[in-house]
Amino acid sequence: MTEIIRTVKDMTAISRRLRAQGRSIGFVPTMGALHEGHEALMKKARHENDIAVISVFVNPLQFGPNEDYDAYPRQLDLDLAVAESAGIDYLFHPEAKEMYPEPAAVTLHVGALADVLEGAKRPGHFDGVVTVVNKLFNIVRPSAAYFGRKDAQQLAIIEAMVRDFNHDIEIVGVEIIREKDGLAKSSRNVYLTDTERQEAAYLSESLEMARQLITEGTRDSKVIEAAIESYLNEHTNGIVDEVAVYRYPELTETEKIDGQCFISLAVKFSHARLIDNIIIGESE
Amino acid sequence: MTEIIRTVKDMTAISRRLRAQGRSIGFVPTMGALHEGHEALMKKARHENDIAVISVFVNPLQFGPNEDYDAYPRQLDLDLAVAESAGIDYLFHPEAKEMYPEPAAVTLHVGALADVLEGAKRPGHFDGVVTVVNKLFNIVRPSAAYFGRKDAQQLAIIEAMVRDFNHDIEIVGVEIIREKDGLAKSSRNVYLTDTERQEAAYLSESLEMARQLITEGTRDSKVIEAAIESYLNEHTNGIVDEVAVYRYPELTETEKIDGQCFISLAVKFSHARLIDNIIIGESE
Repeated sequence: MTEIIRTVKDMTAISRRLRAQGRSIGFVPTMGALHEGHEALMKKARHENDIAVISVFVNPLQFGPNEDYDAYPRQLDLDLAVAESAGIDYLFHPEAKEMYPEPAAVTLHVGALADVLEGAKRPGHFDGVVTVVNKLFNIVRPSAAYFGRKDAQQLAIIEAMVRDFNHDIEIVGVEIIREKDGLAKSSRNVYLTDTERQEAAYLSESLEMARQLITEGTRDSKVIEAAIESYLNEHTNGIVDEVAVYRYPELTETEKIDGQCFISLAVKFSHARLIDNIIIGESE
Repeated sequence: MTEIIRTVKDMTAISRRLRAQGRSIGFVPTMGALHEGHEALMKKARHENDIAVISVFVNPLQFGPNEDYDAYPRQLDLDLAVAESAGIDYLFHPEAKEMYPEPAAVTLHVGALADVLEGAKRPGHFDGVVTVVNKLFNIVRPSAAYFGRKDAQQLAIIEAMVRDFNHDIEIVGVEIIREKDGLAKSSRNVYLTDTERQEAAYLSESLEMARQLITEGTRDSKVIEAAIESYLNEHTNGIVDEVAVYRYPELTETEKIDGQCFISLAVKFSHARLIDNIIIGESE
């Protein structure tokens, strides 16, 4: 049975008791609208810990003034069913007023890591993310927290915060969950037309093609980016919105590919902007 | 026996083990040069918890470019003896490199609470304070942390951070420790001449006089400030550097005294700037 917890006080008391009993807590922070990507995180959290906790909280702080905070899907009953079947013990679901009862006296700010990619397009977004994740970490006190690698920039920023703040929490990045043809799972995939859905498989194909080029010796980022772009233009009718190579997890641009790097792309179809990424040369 | 711990990793492992055993940890963060004010905090931490921890760390982040970071007294052997006699279990004493191995990717910023009093005179000071205290809280994971009320602005800011960040930590403000004649204990008192030392007793006297005026019905902050200033000018040869009335813990200015407020003063003697304060109308 998944128990729903609605107040910071109750969640804090539960975590305090569990940790004092020496039990490990695996934690998956989410904004709800749970899909198979979240399920993979929940299963891993469930498998690797004594207790598994998820949060379902649509965080107002990480939405810009013209973004879809109000329209963001809220479907607690469905989410609860997904959490139940993944074996989650506690679902933390506070109201915004419970998380932010008054304006903050001490604020968090993400530096250069937020100046690229999605951060560059959404000023303040990652400040909102670290603010809520830091709060959730203190409320839930997990031993390990699970994040998808689909949001690679978010993962790099959370890992940096955990280092900077000395949170005693293991951050686990979980592989992107894909359809059989390679398309990264996303709630947005339903907005694709049948033709677009077929074309969308080429996003991950283009990244695999890039990995192959790098394996064969190509080191120039510009060459890789151009190859991906022309591959996508050839195989899809989508508009290539972004193709970028960055060092990972530093998120700095690099002309020459060496060490661990990260290739990110975004393609606009008629009713959905799809993203995908790959991390190359991982130090596992 | 007080055990000295020098690495974040070791301190984190110790706290994790203790908390998993259900033991409470009382924590006193200090910059060393321990005096009777610190002793009072340590004794309270010792008395109220299973385990007592202090940190001795001169935090570079809270010193301005023209301040005395390099000259700040470092006397670990003396501090260790004081900690021993106060029954402290662990003394956490990291190097600056251990606490700040690389530039921070996520920074903390204190808003309006740092725009008055000492915060106004030392830009960035309280950003440095919350940065290190947040880190220490995550490393030591105390159940309760002890701070002196002499630094009332610092205490208000730490309490605000704990609320904002949802740290599961009780913040205990400990009364100012005073000499028999009322002078607040401070390492700086030794810099006073004999005459100044006698005059210095009038700092706390002036605050008691103000408390009396308020008890008798005076409500105008300007009247209280003027009364304190003229009292100090009459009884000491020091230069009155600051007399201010603020709401507490909001630290906003108030023309009329109602609810809880805080009177703060600073007087410059020939070789020492002394501070003192009093909180009026406490909601205990």
